[in-house]
This record gives sequence, structure tokens and C-alpha cells, in this order.
Amino acid sequence: MEKIKAFAAHQEAAPLKPYELQRRDLQENDIFIDIEYCGVCHSDLHFVKNDWGMSQYPLVPGHEIIGRVLGVGANVTDFKEGELVGVGCMVDSCRQCSACEEGLEQYCEKGSVFTYNGPDKYMGGMTFGGYSQQIVVDKDFVLHVPENLDAKAAAPLLCAGITTYSPLKHWNVKKGDRVGVIGLGGLGHMGVKFAHAMGAEVVMITSSPSKSEDAKKLGAHDVLISKDEEQMAQYANSFDFLLNTIPVGHDVNPYLGLLKRDATMVIVGAVEPVEPVHGGQLIFQRKRMAGSLIGGIKETQEMLDFCGEHNIVCDVEMIDMQEINTAYERMQKSDVKYRFVIDIKSLEK
Amino acid sequence: MEKIKAFAAHQEAAPLKPYELQRRDLQENDIFIDIEYCGVCHSDLHFVKNDWGMSQYPLVPGHEIIGRVLGVGANVTDFKEGELVGVGCMVDSCRQCSACEEGLEQYCEKGSVFTYNGPDKYMGGMTFGGYSQQIVVDKDFVLHVPENLDAKAAAPLLCAGITTYSPLKHWNVKKGDRVGVIGLGGLGHMGVKFAHAMGAEVVMITSSPSKSEDAKKLGAHDVLISKDEEQMAQYANSFDFLLNTIPVGHDVNPYLGLLKRDATMVIVGAVEPVEPVHGGQLIFQRKRMAGSLIGGIKETQEMLDFCGEHNIVCDVEMIDMQEINTAYERMQKSDVKYRFVIDIKSLEK
Repeated sequence: MEKIKAFAAHQEAAPLKPYELQRRDLQENDIFIDIEYCGVCHSDLHFVKNDWGMSQYPLVPGHEIIGRVLGVGANVTDFKEGELVGVGCMVDSCRQCSACEEGLEQYCEKGSVFTYNGPDKYMGGMTFGGYSQQIVVDKDFVLHVPENLDAKAAAPLLCAGITTYSPLKHWNVKKGDRVGVIGLGGLGHMGVKFAHAMGAEVVMITSSPSKSEDAKKLGAHDVLISKDEEQMAQYANSFDFLLNTIPVGHDVNPYLGLLKRDATMVIVGAVEPVEPVHGGQLIFQRKRMAGSLIGGIKETQEMLDFCGEHNIVCDVEMIDMQEINTAYERMQKSDVKYRFVIDIKSLEK
Repeated sequence: MEKIKAFAAHQEAAPLKPYELQRRDLQENDIFIDIEYCGVCHSDLHFVKNDWGMSQYPLVPGHEIIGRVLGVGANVTDFKEGELVGVGCMVDSCRQCSACEEGLEQYCEKGSVFTYNGPDKYMGGMTFGGYSQQIVVDKDFVLHVPENLDAKAAAPLLCAGITTYSPLKHWNVKKGDRVGVIGLGGLGHMGVKFAHAMGAEVVMITSSPSKSEDAKKLGAHDVLISKDEEQMAQYANSFDFLLNTIPVGHDVNPYLGLLKRDATMVIVGAVEPVEPVHGGQLIFQRKRMAGSLIGGIKETQEMLDFCGEHNIVCDVEMIDMQEINTAYERMQKSDVKYRFVIDIKSLEK
């Protein structure tokens, strides 16, 4: 409340000026957000290290943003000061192509504007993300976050959450379906929670027997060790859907063998080549392999509402901003259950 | 007619005995077919050479069979003597699994019985195919062939035809869709004809500019040369459906780039590993890659009726049985437009 009052007074005295070179004046459709928490996504690390060759420095990562509304522009009616809100991977899109018109801004034909390292049409240069105290975002890309959720544990819903929720919905996963979630990390642990909440029989598929107990705590009905050929054979042709969250290239053929006829495996993690697919794996039982990228704004709101209803949040480990490099190191070793979240207050230290 | 009378007289005098060790007695559900033509499929050659390591000799290939009914068993009411009929890749299946119950015998969970080199439950040993003068087949696996079709040119419909028709129907190709057919051979030329007849805008995608003219004659509206990067870029993200008929392993990534968001490429030819798929190709526009295997009996009949209605047959080159080895050699060099068909009368020479 203090902050909101101070913000309002400041706005009255002198309309907001670009803030530390990275915040635009509050436009009529904008929301000014006081960031409380920001999740640490694998792609943050890829951008920091310029693994994908497209990083432009200076770069402020972060696209799993939770905060409270400090102020709103003149046209904003459905967000209130003080409200808990979220910002995910996108802050803008063309709004005119067929994808945008269908609410699938992540597939915008002109390219959606990423929350960081995307072309900033207001300020020039690139957008800056959520490892920061404030952010100004167009209302159409801000999400309402149910107040009953633990705010810090809700942060990774904005990327890890929607990335796993969207394909489960798109491919119509329903009660009683046998769903396999491949890989138990930031994405995988959310896949298990969502599929469980949708009433599916969830099988965690992992190469690490040590993860069995945790997988069951998260809601998996069974655990399938992918290295165990006998177990894999028992589960052959038995899955209605597979959510493949492995973040790097790998051999998908053993997993394709697990699908029923006409069933689909969706890849959400491996943005790189996977080993040769055996055509016969797809042909002989008319199987499918597909991809999926985060989710549109409408679906992200639906996902957050679903989480509010089912009280679903991520399992997180809180860090101060000062610990980010250690967190990156641990993340690379999969040494986190299951997502680091930065307490943005630590920036005041 | 002569043959039918002779057959009937023979049956009356002495019920049919196993014929040359490979024909069973006519059972009550059986149809005895006098084979007139048999198409030459690539898989015939693979079986002859034991490329897939499962050939059992002696082996009689042939699963694109056209002939006339010589006689029928006691329970057969919907086939008449003298009628033009066809037999495709299967002559039996378990008839009880979910696939069989859905009319998808090609995906029979117990394994459908192939027309040749499949376990013969009547005679023991393996089934023998259509490079032969007669065949006895259960009525449930015999197709009615519209009499208005050129019988010899209809033979390859039983494999090449249904293999391309089925995925076009399964993935709901419709009027106005832009459909790419990749590869112009036995399968590809039928894919062009079917997609054209379904009202699609058909683009032939081939590495050989020399095939352009022929592709257009077959019904392609345009030809895209896959080696031409500029042309490929012009067609990026523009196809509603891709039918990939390339019969060997290859790089699918350039083709995936041609698909629209949420569109599908179906592989029907490459029963072997295809080069590494770039996960990003699937993820960034939620694309799909699937497989498809021939078609069920019900759908094969539907396809034949469709062909009767639209007067669609294959482009064939007739050979005598004595020329089969030369035909195999030419087939390996893609030197055929577009399917060899054996005139079975040549066996009498």
C-alpha cells in the first residue's frame, strides 16, 4: 500500500520517466508492476551464456514474473492497484495474424515479443526481463494470479507451468488416460501435477531410479525406469499421451514404442536435434510426434485459474539475487527441486 | 465364363484339394480368385532380397492383386462368380482387438496376416502372394473393384493407392487445402491424383526438376524443387498437409519447415531411420510428424469406390512374369512410370 501511494504521488508530481533506461513511461494500456518474485528458467542461462547466438547485452533475464500492480494506464479497467499479477514469456505480439487472432500469441507469425531480449518498440533496443524490481507491461500480456496461491511458488507457472499445461489440453488428455511424463525437472514435475489433476493415470518416465519416491509424492501413480528394457517392454504400446520434457537431444525411439496406436508424444524441451527417428516407429501404429511452445495468453490465464482451483503451484527453492550464479551451476547439474525462484527483495540488500 | 464352369464342374466332381501345395480347400467363407494382374511393389523386392531379415523361402510375392471370382464358399453371399475383385496387403487378422473392431486390421494388435510371407493358419507355413494364377482368400479380405476401372491399372490401388488415400482422409484433407506430395514414384503419383480429386491445391515436391511436367499432368498445380532453397523459403510455413512418400531415410527438417502451424507431415515410405529431427522445427509452430500404414479393409473399399467415381487408376507399365528381374532392376533406379504390373496370363507362356 505504501508503495502504491508513493507511486501515485510520484505520477501526479511528474509522470513516470524512463526508469534506469529500461522502463517506459506508463502508457494508457500499461500496467506498472512491482516485482516480488522471478523464477529461474533454463533458457535464462542459455541467454546469459549466449548459447543460441542471439543474446544482446546488456541483458536482464527472467520471464516467470510475479508481482503486484503499482499503477495502471488510463485504459486499464480490469486490473486494480495492489492486485497479484504475473508476466510470462511474452509482452507483445502483432495482434493481427491468424495465430494472434486465435489467442496463440506464442506462434505469432511476425514473432511475439519476448519478455527479455526481444525488440522493444517503445524504448528501442531490447526488452528487459524480471530479474528486476519493476516492469511495465501492456495489459493484454499481464495475467491475474489467484490470491489463494503461494505467490513465490506460482512464479514458474508462467513458463514451466503453461509449457506443460498447454499440450495436455491441446491433445485432450482426460480422465483415465495413461499419460507418461518423460524427465523429472522443472517442466516434468509440473507435467505430473497437471496430468494428475486432470484425472489421468500418470507414469513418471525417468532414467534415475532415485527419483521414484519424489515422482510419487508429486502425483505419479507409477514410475517407469527408461533404462530397464524389461519394464519398457511391459509398457509397450500402452500410453495415450507422452509429454517429453527432456531439455536436450536424445533418442526418442524407445519412447515412441510406448505409445498406443494413434497416440502422440509431444516434445516441449529439446529445442535441438533429437537422434534419428525410425520411420517404422511412426508408421506401424500410426503414431505421432509433435512439438509445443509455452501457451497463449488466454490459455495461460486458464492455467492459472486451474491452479487456483486445484491449489497447484511449483515446488521451488528460494534464492537471493546474489546467489544466481551458484543457482545456474546447480541447475546445470539438475540439482534443484524443481525450480529456483529469486526473492526480488534481495535486490535491496 | 469357361473358367468358372470348369471350376464349378471340378468342384462338383472332387472338392478342391490343396493346389500346388499353396492353395487351401475352399472354406465356407472363402473366395477362389483367378488372378489377372498383380502390381509390383517396392516391398516385393525387399522381401525377395530379404532386406528386412524376415523372408522365408520359398516366397511368392505380390499384394496388389486383381482378378475375377472363380468360385465362392457356402457362406459367401456378397461376391458373385465372375466379379472383378482385389486383394491387398492382408488376408487375415485377429478380428477381436480394438484395431480390428475399428476396421483398422493393418494395426491388428496380434499382427495382421500379410498376403505373402505371413503365417498361414490353414496350410501351415507361410502365405503365398499374387505372382500366381490363383489365390484363395477369406471374403472379409477381398475387395469389390468397380467394373468401370481399367483392371490392370487398378492393381496398384490395393497397396500404393490405399497407402496414400488413407492418410489424406485420416488427416482430413479437404477442398482448398494446400497439400504437398513429397517424392514422385509409385506412391507419390497416387498421392497427387487423390489430393487433386479431393479438391486440394497440390504441390509436387521433388528433387528432380525433370519430373515437373509429369507432375502437372498427374494433377499437381505447382512443383517445388526441394533443392532450390529460394523456392523452399517462398513456401515456408504454407502447407496444410504433407504426404512424404520418400522410401528411404532422409532429412525431414526442410520439409517440416514447409508446414503451417499445427499442420502435419505423414511419412508413408521410410520404414527406417530418418535423419535427426530438430525439436525446434516441431516446437516453434506446434507441428506434427506422423506415420501411416496402408489402410483397413473398409477404407480400402471406400478408396476403390472413390476411384470408380472419379475414374482414378494408377499409371502402369505392363510386364510379363518373365521380365520381373529386369523390372526390379529398373525399379531400383526409379525407372518406371509409375508402377510395374504383371500380366498373369504370361505365366501360361
